[in-house]
Amino acid sequence: MTIDETLSMTATGTPAAPRSGRLRPLSLREVTLRDGFWQRRQQVNRNTSLAHIEHWIERTGWLANFTVAPESRRGREFSDSEIYKLLEAMAWELGREPDPGLRARYDRIVAVVAAAQLPDGYLNTRFGRAGQPPRWSDLEWGHELYCLGHLIQAAVARARTGHPDDLLVLVARRAADLVCEVFADAGVCGHAEIEPALVELYRVTGERRYLEQARLFVERRGNQVLDDIEFGRSYFQDDVPVRDAEVLRGHAVRAVYLAAGTVDVAVETGDDELLAAVVRQWRAAVSRRTYLTGGIGSRHQDEAFGDDFVLPPDRAYSETCAAVGSVMLAWRLLLAEGDPRYADLIERILFNVIATSPSDDGTRFFYTNTLHQRVLGTEPGADTQVPRAASTLRAPWFEVSCCPTNLARTFAALTAYIATTDDDGVQLHQYTAADVGVTLPGDRRVAFRVDTDYPATGRITVRITESPGTPWTLTLRIPPWATGATLMTSDGGVTEVAPGSARLRRVFTPGELVILDLPLHPRLTVADPRVDAVRGCAAVERGPIVYCAESVDLPAGVALDALRLTPSLTDTPGAVLATCEVTALPDENWPYSGTPSPLPARRSPATAVIPLRPYHSWAGRGPSTMRVWIPIKTLSGTT
Amino acid sequence: MTIDETLSMTATGTPAAPRSGRLRPLSLREVTLRDGFWQRRQQVNRNTSLAHIEHWIERTGWLANFTVAPESRRGREFSDSEIYKLLEAMAWELGREPDPGLRARYDRIVAVVAAAQLPDGYLNTRFGRAGQPPRWSDLEWGHELYCLGHLIQAAVARARTGHPDDLLVLVARRAADLVCEVFADAGVCGHAEIEPALVELYRVTGERRYLEQARLFVERRGNQVLDDIEFGRSYFQDDVPVRDAEVLRGHAVRAVYLAAGTVDVAVETGDDELLAAVVRQWRAAVSRRTYLTGGIGSRHQDEAFGDDFVLPPDRAYSETCAAVGSVMLAWRLLLAEGDPRYADLIERILFNVIATSPSDDGTRFFYTNTLHQRVLGTEPGADTQVPRAASTLRAPWFEVSCCPTNLARTFAALTAYIATTDDDGVQLHQYTAADVGVTLPGDRRVAFRVDTDYPATGRITVRITESPGTPWTLTLRIPPWATGATLMTSDGGVTEVAPGSARLRRVFTPGELVILDLPLHPRLTVADPRVDAVRGCAAVERGPIVYCAESVDLPAGVALDALRLTPSLTDTPGAVLATCEVTALPDENWPYSGTPSPLPARRSPATAVIPLRPYHSWAGRGPSTMRVWIPIKTLSGTT
Repeated sequence: MTIDETLSMTATGTPAAPRSGRLRPLSLREVTLRDGFWQRRQQVNRNTSLAHIEHWIERTGWLANFTVAPESRRGREFSDSEIYKLLEAMAWELGREPDPGLRARYDRIVAVVAAAQLPDGYLNTRFGRAGQPPRWSDLEWGHELYCLGHLIQAAVARARTGHPDDLLVLVARRAADLVCEVFADAGVCGHAEIEPALVELYRVTGERRYLEQARLFVERRGNQVLDDIEFGRSYFQDDVPVRDAEVLRGHAVRAVYLAAGTVDVAVETGDDELLAAVVRQWRAAVSRRTYLTGGIGSRHQDEAFGDDFVLPPDRAYSETCAAVGSVMLAWRLLLAEGDPRYADLIERILFNVIATSPSDDGTRFFYTNTLHQRVLGTEPGADTQVPRAASTLRAPWFEVSCCPTNLARTFAALTAYIATTDDDGVQLHQYTAADVGVTLPGDRRVAFRVDTDYPATGRITVRITESPGTPWTLTLRIPPWATGATLMTSDGGVTEVAPGSARLRRVFTPGELVILDLPLHPRLTVADPRVDAVRGCAAVERGPIVYCAESVDLPAGVALDALRLTPSLTDTPGAVLATCEVTALPDENWPYSGTPSPLPARRSPATAVIPLRPYHSWAGRGPSTMRVWIPIKTLSGTT
Repeated sequence: MTIDETLSMTATGTPAAPRSGRLRPLSLREVTLRDGFWQRRQQVNRNTSLAHIEHWIERTGWLANFTVAPESRRGREFSDSEIYKLLEAMAWELGREPDPGLRARYDRIVAVVAAAQLPDGYLNTRFGRAGQPPRWSDLEWGHELYCLGHLIQAAVARARTGHPDDLLVLVARRAADLVCEVFADAGVCGHAEIEPALVELYRVTGERRYLEQARLFVERRGNQVLDDIEFGRSYFQDDVPVRDAEVLRGHAVRAVYLAAGTVDVAVETGDDELLAAVVRQWRAAVSRRTYLTGGIGSRHQDEAFGDDFVLPPDRAYSETCAAVGSVMLAWRLLLAEGDPRYADLIERILFNVIATSPSDDGTRFFYTNTLHQRVLGTEPGADTQVPRAASTLRAPWFEVSCCPTNLARTFAALTAYIATTDDDGVQLHQYTAADVGVTLPGDRRVAFRVDTDYPATGRITVRITESPGTPWTLTLRIPPWATGATLMTSDGGVTEVAPGSARLRRVFTPGELVILDLPLHPRLTVADPRVDAVRGCAAVERGPIVYCAESVDLPAGVALDALRLTPSLTDTPGAVLATCEVTALPDENWPYSGTPSPLPARRSPATAVIPLRPYHSWAGRGPSTMRVWIPIKTLSGTT
């Protein structure tokens, strides 16, 4: 296959385009979001967040780093990558919908970046110039390959959206060539990212040495090739080879980026054992190291996974970028294996972490996503760069500002995660108003429109708009909580469909309707008893949405910590009303005692009906305390 | 009062010798430990740990730093302080019981330290020489004043134990004079410690400017006089003036050292408002930010207090040094106010943190003291310097090795915390075999012997050995858990005494016995419902001892996480036998569900009798998983 063939295949591309696998991704031109939960967020990202990010990379000097003298460089060692992630977001946006103004902004930044590239392809503002450390002298912390990985991802986005000869693509290829040259025999980066990027560049260009270099990086890591550090080598997954590891561990973003790149390598090289290793680690992490929101990472100290079942709501790290990487990983596994459980996790992460991080107006972000806020946060000023990841209110920018740009590229490419195709039909994974149109093998054109206000209600209407005269299969994901879901077809037939996948294979007629009803009752969820931190608590979920209680919704004089959830939940638009007992809280000199303190409320308990709202909207009404996991009223009536 | 008068008063000294207060401390010569729980540990410290520490400060080069060229300096910025803490420990030991060999070792180290002092009194191996940062150029992280504080504490120990003209005392005074000169108008140290040290030096020397300088440091901090840092200024208590703060916060060791120094300043200046501020903060911290063990600090990231009630057992930091500082603080408050609750906390910390950290042989130490170990640790080799505080098994030494030396000085001076005196008698605070002899005002000689194997059993026998012919008061602390304690006197009378203080005022006769019986039944303890991390769990305590379950004690096939505690506890020597239900653990792909998983064990529950052992002995039999808080069997039988 020549380079040109490859490029034309992916001209209206998508992130992650494997050459084999059970499912094939659709491009940003084959799916279009219409007004709904995700399209609104995608539009805010395009119309506001991109400019917000441009403002901050100017203001912080991170863009100027590409032009100023070395001694004037500002920002952390990975700040180049924020520029690249912004470019990737812009590239996907331009691919979805051209805009001359956006194009000019994109071109201007690309020109700045390109001008900083050295003749041999090296590109990094922090290393290698006068007064700076030498190139590749700090693989543990330097982030040089990490930055180039994001550069390459941006270039891939541009190439896949019809611009294979864009200046950025040339820049990225020269950088990638240098990487292949320098790292042929040894070395990996302390932060995985170059791995998936190189495979994607291989997919775009057909250049096998990029794939081979990615494979080398994946296989090398885990053999103690990096120096030991305070957090231990597990921090950057250099403790155990990826082929042998049993669970995702260490720094959460690094872990999921590496796993995503490993899937890419495994799929392209046909290495089933390697793929199985990632599946095993993913399953272990999902079953023992994942928050109810789908978020990962319970350690602030090293932004890392904790031990199994260490998932404290009040010290949840659940970094936004880890959620982004977790979507990247689950998406690749979905394409490779077709199992809807991957799409289940993607939905959970999208609605409960990705949707939680940004403010409604797209100019403030949570870096970490705690599940329990005990004290009122303070809202940082609009001009304030927050010094670090802190579980306070959403902030405009961070000294380590990886999350806003990571969200930007995710929202810009979100369209790609809605549906997939295979030889026999189309699989609809995520439910949001959209138009889907795809040409199946044999030039069979299939198109349909999805109408829904999900997750507000559970009705998803699929109207077939184009269909060949031959049978094809429409596959609809039935989430695991959707027991009792029904499928109604134009002939009036109603079928109950079990969680998993509902497959409808037939000769569809344009105009025909398929109506999926997912039951969206509020439900109480409890955790595995080994998640000690939430013993005796329940969370409320409704469909894919995790709910929370916020102090701003409480009656005067009722403390968040005094609530005891009962099974009485009432569904209303926008909120689930929960009847709670309100207990008295002890007032002790010492918080440990032989018997529960006598609580006056126990004999004649006060009750209150508390509105619980979607977790992703929390702190949208100013400072508040909040909890997702709420203690349940026990039989004995004790605490 | 002249300097000489002061010195003679404190010639057989004690740590913390305030000039006023409800109670007066006894010196290391007025109390002698005899064979028992604490004397054994004190002997191991003297006979083994001191030499172990000397070995490591040689091996790491931290002692050689005082003689080598600046560029050869090794270790962290605070390594000088480890030498000073060792000297303090040696000084107390020499004060308790002379030993020519130990004296020679002490003198050798003092000579090395003294030779490094500059003519103007400056002494620090990390700053101020060629190629090093200038003096006082990094108050936030440099630890210069912190190190000098420990130097002064060592000198105070030496002066108070009969050597006011020791070379180390002269060195410390010159350093203190320089500090008063340099910091007259501005500046505090990022790590409190100089504050209590300067007050103590004032107490030893009568030199008021040391007290005044300590007062300035105490009042200055909290007014944002240090640069902001990633963890926020609360990390070094520079967020709120100590006079205004409501609770201990930030880095736990810094917080309690500062509070201890503040009590010292308040007591010596008669500043009741300042003392009340510390009492307020102490009460808030004890009631909302303290582990069952008495340990403090729940954040690994910044070794800090968490928010109120954030006390996860599995991420407990509970640094050994924070426990040392917490004893220093509570002891000063006890002397100032006389309230036995301070001694209650001291007892809890001593038995459950201070006794936990070192191995039985005194050559390995826990830096952090977790209350829940989920995975088997690995035992570091005897030659291994552990890179950082990790909740693994006890280690011989650490890169940040503050804890071994802090324990050494605490064990060496432990004798001082047993009893106090006032004009009317003697207060016995801690129960361990000991001889106590003191001269009350009016030259009234009082002496008694304490016999007990507490905490194994609860009988404490006090035999009066010397007594004047006039009445005096023997006060015995009755711990809060000791409901039903009885006091038997020689006349055969038995009186039930309530928790708090039992006061016996009379003309005692030599030979007379006072027998206190503290009931030591195992008991179940639950936590304030706001300590979410241990909801639905109980801990087992017996007397002052916190117990734990260790995997090494479990029958084959029983997992620690499967235990459900029932109220059935049986006291046996060395262990409490707990009857537990053994539940089946779920095997899920996703750890959250609508209803508890069907657990086969529920219908016909397996039970096991598990020996729980004192927490302080955990990990003494090799790698083990462990938990202090164990889920309790609930009425509904669910998890």
